[in-house]
Amino acid sequence: MSGSVIGNRFKIMTWGESHGAALGVTIDGCPAGLLLSSEDIQKYLDLRRPGQSKMTTQRSEKDKVEILSGVFEGMTTGTPISLMIKNEDQHSKDYSNIADKMRPGHADYGFTEKYGFRDYRGGGRSSGRETIARVAAGAVAIKILEGLGISIVSYTSAIGPVKASSFDEEDIMKNPLFMADLNAAKEAEAFVKNCVEKGDSVGGIIETKVFGMPPGIGEPVFGKLDASLAQAMLSIGAVKGFEIGDGFKAAEALGSENNDEFMSENGHVIKKTNHSGGVLGGMSDGSDIFFKVAIKPTPSISKEQNTVNDKGENVSLVIKGRHDPVIVPRAVIVVKSMCALILLDALMENMTSRISYLEDFYGKK
Amino acid sequence: MSGSVIGNRFKIMTWGESHGAALGVTIDGCPAGLLLSSEDIQKYLDLRRPGQSKMTTQRSEKDKVEILSGVFEGMTTGTPISLMIKNEDQHSKDYSNIADKMRPGHADYGFTEKYGFRDYRGGGRSSGRETIARVAAGAVAIKILEGLGISIVSYTSAIGPVKASSFDEEDIMKNPLFMADLNAAKEAEAFVKNCVEKGDSVGGIIETKVFGMPPGIGEPVFGKLDASLAQAMLSIGAVKGFEIGDGFKAAEALGSENNDEFMSENGHVIKKTNHSGGVLGGMSDGSDIFFKVAIKPTPSISKEQNTVNDKGENVSLVIKGRHDPVIVPRAVIVVKSMCALILLDALMENMTSRISYLEDFYGKK
Amino acid sequence: MSGSVIGNRFKIMTWGESHGAALGVTIDGCPAGLLLSSEDIQKYLDLRRPGQSKMTTQRSEKDKVEILSGVFEGMTTGTPISLMIKNEDQHSKDYSNIADKMRPGHADYGFTEKYGFRDYRGGGRSSGRETIARVAAGAVAIKILEGLGISIVSYTSAIGPVKASSFDEEDIMKNPLFMADLNAAKEAEAFVKNCVEKGDSVGGIIETKVFGMPPGIGEPVFGKLDASLAQAMLSIGAVKGFEIGDGFKAAEALGSENNDEFMSENGHVIKKTNHSGGVLGGMSDGSDIFFKVAIKPTPSISKEQNTVNDKGENVSLVIKGRHDPVIVPRAVIVVKSMCALILLDALMENMTSRISYLEDFYGKK
Amino acid sequence: MSGSVIGNRFKIMTWGESHGAALGVTIDGCPAGLLLSSEDIQKYLDLRRPGQSKMTTQRSEKDKVEILSGVFEGMTTGTPISLMIKNEDQHSKDYSNIADKMRPGHADYGFTEKYGFRDYRGGGRSSGRETIARVAAGAVAIKILEGLGISIVSYTSAIGPVKASSFDEEDIMKNPLFMADLNAAKEAEAFVKNCVEKGDSVGGIIETKVFGMPPGIGEPVFGKLDASLAQAMLSIGAVKGFEIGDGFKAAEALGSENNDEFMSENGHVIKKTNHSGGVLGGMSDGSDIFFKVAIKPTPSISKEQNTVNDKGENVSLVIKGRHDPVIVPRAVIVVKSMCALILLDALMENMTSRISYLEDFYGKK
Repeated sequence: MSGSVIGNRFKIMTWGESHGAALGVTIDGCPAGLLLSSEDIQKYLDLRRPGQSKMTTQRSEKDKVEILSGVFEGMTTGTPISLMIKNEDQHSKDYSNIADKMRPGHADYGFTEKYGFRDYRGGGRSSGRETIARVAAGAVAIKILEGLGISIVSYTSAIGPVKASSFDEEDIMKNPLFMADLNAAKEAEAFVKNCVEKGDSVGGIIETKVFGMPPGIGEPVFGKLDASLAQAMLSIGAVKGFEIGDGFKAAEALGSENNDEFMSENGHVIKKTNHSGGVLGGMSDGSDIFFKVAIKPTPSISKEQNTVNDKGENVSLVIKGRHDPVIVPRAVIVVKSMCALILLDALMENMTSRISYLEDFYGKK
Repeated sequence: MSGSVIGNRFKIMTWGESHGAALGVTIDGCPAGLLLSSEDIQKYLDLRRPGQSKMTTQRSEKDKVEILSGVFEGMTTGTPISLMIKNEDQHSKDYSNIADKMRPGHADYGFTEKYGFRDYRGGGRSSGRETIARVAAGAVAIKILEGLGISIVSYTSAIGPVKASSFDEEDIMKNPLFMADLNAAKEAEAFVKNCVEKGDSVGGIIETKVFGMPPGIGEPVFGKLDASLAQAMLSIGAVKGFEIGDGFKAAEALGSENNDEFMSENGHVIKKTNHSGGVLGGMSDGSDIFFKVAIKPTPSISKEQNTVNDKGENVSLVIKGRHDPVIVPRAVIVVKSMCALILLDALMENMTSRISYLEDFYGKK
Repeated sequence: MSGSVIGNRFKIMTWGESHGAALGVTIDGCPAGLLLSSEDIQKYLDLRRPGQSKMTTQRSEKDKVEILSGVFEGMTTGTPISLMIKNEDQHSKDYSNIADKMRPGHADYGFTEKYGFRDYRGGGRSSGRETIARVAAGAVAIKILEGLGISIVSYTSAIGPVKASSFDEEDIMKNPLFMADLNAAKEAEAFVKNCVEKGDSVGGIIETKVFGMPPGIGEPVFGKLDASLAQAMLSIGAVKGFEIGDGFKAAEALGSENNDEFMSENGHVIKKTNHSGGVLGGMSDGSDIFFKVAIKPTPSISKEQNTVNDKGENVSLVIKGRHDPVIVPRAVIVVKSMCALILLDALMENMTSRISYLEDFYGKK
Repeated sequence: MSGSVIGNRFKIMTWGESHGAALGVTIDGCPAGLLLSSEDIQKYLDLRRPGQSKMTTQRSEKDKVEILSGVFEGMTTGTPISLMIKNEDQHSKDYSNIADKMRPGHADYGFTEKYGFRDYRGGGRSSGRETIARVAAGAVAIKILEGLGISIVSYTSAIGPVKASSFDEEDIMKNPLFMADLNAAKEAEAFVKNCVEKGDSVGGIIETKVFGMPPGIGEPVFGKLDASLAQAMLSIGAVKGFEIGDGFKAAEALGSENNDEFMSENGHVIKKTNHSGGVLGGMSDGSDIFFKVAIKPTPSISKEQNTVNDKGENVSLVIKGRHDPVIVPRAVIVVKSMCALILLDALMENMTSRISYLEDFYGKK
C-alpha cells in the first residue's frame, strides 16, 4: 500500500497532523456484528498518552475518541467506521523559532524536499502524534482477534544499553516503561532521568509475542506475514530495525541448530523449538509469533545542534519546549496495534484460500 | 500488497514453481521508451544461477529469459512486459521420499495448512527458485534507475560467524560469496566447505548501499521508503531481519549521538553523518541509503531430522539430493532486485507530489 | 477498488450514514501546494442540498464542511485531507414504522442479506446522503482540474419522458432541475408536480461534457478512462445505465458512419466528428468527452406497496415523511464530482507513462 | 483498478499484443483445490476464434492455451496460475502501409499521445486479440461459479438495426452470430454480408443473464456489483454503453412502475418483478442479473478514410487485409468472461462481511 492506506480486507486510511484540528482514521471492511464502543478504543489511546509518568512528556492531551460512523445500536454495521480524536493542547508557539529550520533526525527536510513546504508545527504529519489514529484502528482489530482467541503482548525489552534479563507478563503494566522485568525497569528509569538532565534522549527495543495464531496465515510471496509485519513496524516513526524469531542471530547459526523440528503431541502438530519466531515460509506455523523492533532515540533534544534552514544556510538550533526523552513506552501500544491490523487482515484474506471454503460458504452445487 | 503482486506504479505479478513448466513475471506500468533487450535481464539471472562455484548447488539451470510482450523494436511500449524462464533441469525424483513429510524450516507445513495440499516437488512455490522472477523484473528497474544516476551495490558482509572487516567494491565480484573483503571471503569459504562435510548449512548477512537517490522519496505514513524496503526484503525466503542505518545499534545510542546534522556545502544540503542510513521520517534524506538483511541457514540439510508427515505421524527425514549449503550468495542479486523495484516505484509515485508538477506537465491555465 | 475507496493516485475513502453523527471523506495523494478553503468545497455541497426548490425535499440540511487536516496556511500540504459534514436535521422518528420492512427499490434487503442487520434509519449507508462525501472530495478535484484548464459541465437532459431539445449552458443554473433547455424545464417541473400529487416519483438522464482534456489519458486495458467513468457513475445510487459518445446508438451504426476521421488544423490534430464521445481505445482522444447517465425514479414513494419484513413475512408498507419526488437534480453535482475524481486520477497516473518523463523530472544521467 | 490488473481477491494481470510472441494472463488468489485442465479453458478460447463462420475473419488462429503454473496433479494449488497463448499466424506485412497513420476509430492516436510511439502491427496492445487473455482467466472463474450453482448466459440481441424479438437459449449456439432468435439471426447474417460487400462494418448489442447469484453480493459504495460490471464491460474494446435491468428505460418510468416488490414464497424472499436487473443498492438482490452492453461497429473498414499520420499531416488511408465486418459474436464470450471474473471476486470479498463468518471459520473463543 502507499501513502496513508494499509490493509487489503481490513483497510484503514489515517489522517491528521500534530497541530491540525483533529486526527483520525476510517476503517473500511470491518465485519458487521462486532460489539464496539468508544471505551473499547479509549483504553488503548490512554496507553499512548504522555504525562502518565515522569518518563514521558508533560504535555496534557485528553485524546477522547469519537465514533462518527459504522456503528449502530452498539454493533458494527459493516460500513466504514470513522474514528476521530480532536486536538486540544498543542501550543503552536512552542515551534515558532524553528519554523524554518530542518531539525536533525526529523522528517522536516524530507517533507520540504517532497512537497515544497511543510506544516512546521510539531512535525505536522510526521509527528509521533499521527500514531494515535493507528492505535484507534488497532483497538478494533485487537477486539476482533481476542474474540478469535488471539492475543498480542508487546513490551519494552531494552532502553538504551539497559536490557531486560527476565520476563514476567504481569510486570509490564507495573512500570511506566512497560518493561517485563522490574529490576531492569528501575535501572532504565534512572538512565532516562539522566538523559533528561543532560538534555539528551534515548531509544530502545520493543518485543512482541502473539499467542493463538492458527497456522497457514499469510499470503506468499509478497504478502508474507513477516513481510507485512516488517512493513507495518518500519512505518512507525523512529523504527530502524525489525527481526523475527532468532532474527540477526539466525545469520550466525547452522541449519541443524536453526531448524524447528515438527512433532505430534496429543493429535496436534507442534514444533519442538521456535527459532522461526512463529512464521515459516511467510506463513504462521502454529508456534507463538515473536518479533523485535528497534527504536532510535528521540530526535528532539534540548542540546544545541547545527543544521540548515529553508534557504540552505547553516544555522544553529535549540529545540525548546516539552519533548519526550524516550518514546519507546508510548510506542509499545503502537507496535501492538500495527500487529493487530496486520494479523487480522491476513486472517481475513486466508478465508478464500480453498475451493472448499467457497463451497461450504455458498453451498456446493 | 498481497499475494504475488507488489508495487503501485511499477507493479509486478510473479508466478511459477520450482518444478512447474516455467516461472515468470509480468510488469505493469513500466514507462515506454526504455531500450530493453533480454541481455539486460539475462546478466542478472546469471548471477543467481547455482553451479557458478563450489559454494552453491551443482544443479544445472540454464535459466534463459524470454521477453514475450511489451517491447517493440527494442523499446518498451508502456504495455505489460511478460518475462518467462522455462524450467529444464528439475529432477522430480529427488523429492519422492519426502512428498508427504513436513521438512523442518520449510513452508511445507504452512502451505498444507493453508491450501490443504501442496506441490511437494522442491518446495513448489516456496522454493527459492521463485526469486528468479523477481530478479528478471528487478533487472528492468535497475536499468531505469541507472539512467537516472541511481546505483545499488549489494554484497555479503557475513557468512555465519565470519564477518567482513573491510570494504572494497571491486572485491565483490572476485569471490563466489560476493563478499567485499577477500580475506573474510577466504575464511568464509573454508567455513562453508566444513558445513558441506558435516551435512549442515549456514546463513549470513547481506548489506546494500544505494547511491544517487534524491531526497524526499517515499510515501508516508504506510508507504515510507524504509517500510517498503523492509516488506520487500522480508518477502525473500529465509530472511529473518532487516535494519536500516545504525539499525538495532541505534536502540542503544543517545539522541545527540544518533542525530545527523545537516549542513550546507557548495550550495547543496548534506548530512555530516549518516546514522539514519539515508532514510529519515520515511523519506530518502539525500545521503546514501544503507541497510542490512539477515538470512537464516538453508533449511535443507543432509543430517537426519525428526518431523511429522501429512497424517500428523512422527517420522524421520533425510533430505537427499543437491542442496545449497549456503544461499546467501544467490540472494545478493535478489536483494538488489527487490531494492530496485521499491526505489523505482517510490520515485514514480513522487512525481505527483506537488500541484506545480501537474502544472508543469499539463500546462497551467 | 472495493468498498469505500476509489482512485489510485488521488485516492479517497468515504464514510458516514444518513443518520449517524456525521459523514465525510479522506483524500490521500492530493498534491501539495493547492490553495484550498472550505468555501471551495461548500459551494458544491450547496448544489446538493434539498429545499432549494419545490422540486426537491423540504428537509433542512445545513451541511457545513470542515477541513480537519491536510491544509496549512491555506494550502494543501500533500498529507491526507479529511473533510467532515456533521448531520443535524435527521428525524429518526420518520422511519420507525418501517424499521423491519424491506423497502422496494432500496438496498435494505441487500444490506440485511450481506451484514445480517442494518441501520434502518433513512437507508443508513445506502442513503443518497452518502454522496455528500463524494461531492466534498470532488470539489478538490474540480479545483485542480480547473487550474489545468479542464472544465466539466453536467446537466439534466431528461426528466421522465420530458426530454430537452436544445442546449444553452447558461440555462442550467436558471432552473431547479438544472436542465439546459428552459422550455423543457418548465414542462418537466409540471410533470414532477404531478408526481408529487400522485405520491409517485420519476427518474431522468444526466449528460456531461468535459472540455480541455489532453489526449492519451487513461490506463488500458482495465483502467480505461471510459471504464473508470462507468464504474464511478454506476456507483452512484439509482444509476442504471451509462453510455459514452453515441452509446447505444453506435450499436446501430455502420463503421463508415461511426468512425471519427482525424485531421490537421493549425498544427493541431483534431477529429472531424465526435461519435466516440472523446474516448477512443480507452484513452481521451482530444475531443470533448461526452457521456450520459440514466437514473431510475426515486424508490421512496408515498403510495402503498407490498413487501416483506425481517422475518420474511408478507407485509404492507407506506413510506411516510419527506422524500424527493425526483433525485436527478441533486445527482447532477454528484455526477460532475465523480467525473472530476476519475479524470484527475487518470491525469496523475499518466505522468509516468514515458521514460523521458522520469528523465525530465529527475535528470538524465 | 489501473492498467492491466483487475480484481481484488481473484486478481488477474493480462499481457500481450496482437503481433508479439504470445499473450497471456496470470491469476493471483485462485482458491486451491479446483480441478483444472487446459480443456476447461480451451473450449472458451475456441468460441473467440475467427474463421468459425463467414461472419468473422478468415485469419487462422489456433490459440492453444498452456498452463504454466499453479496447477499440480490436476488441481489448482492456490499459487499464481499463468496461462499463455502463443501467437502464430499474424501477418506483419498486412499493416506496413499504415504504420505511421492514425486509423480512425482505433487507439493509435491515443497510444501515440500517451507513450510517444506504438507497436503499429495490428493495433498492438489495443487489438481485440488482447481479450483472449481475459477469456482464459474467465474460464477458470466460470468453472468455479458453476461449482457454486451460478451460470452466465450471454448472447447477441441485436446486430446493427436488426433486433431479436424472442429468446430461446438453445438457439444461441445454433448460429454464428450467437443470437437467441434464429429468425433475427438469419436477417442479421444477410445484413452483415451486405456490409462486407460495401467494405463497411456494423456493431450490435450483447445481453447477459446470470442465474443463481445469492443476494447481498457487492461492496458498496464504490465496489458495487453493477459498478464493477460496468467497469469490466466498458474495458472491453468497442464497448460504448452499459445498462442493467431496465437501464435507460428506467429513466422514463415512475417509481410505482419501477420498484420491484418483495414477497415471500415457499419460505424464500423473491421479487415480483425485476426492473432492477438483479442488482439493488449495488448488491445482488436474489433475482436473475440482467444487463446489456452496446458495441460500436468495427473501426477497420476497407472504405477509404481521411486521417493524419505521425507527423500530423493529412493523409488518406485504406486498410487492407482481413478484418471482421462485425466483432459482436466474438465479444459474447468476452462479456461472459468479464462477468464471471467480477462475480467471483465479489463472492470472495463477501465472505468476510460478518464477524460470525470469522468466528465460524476460526472458532469463537
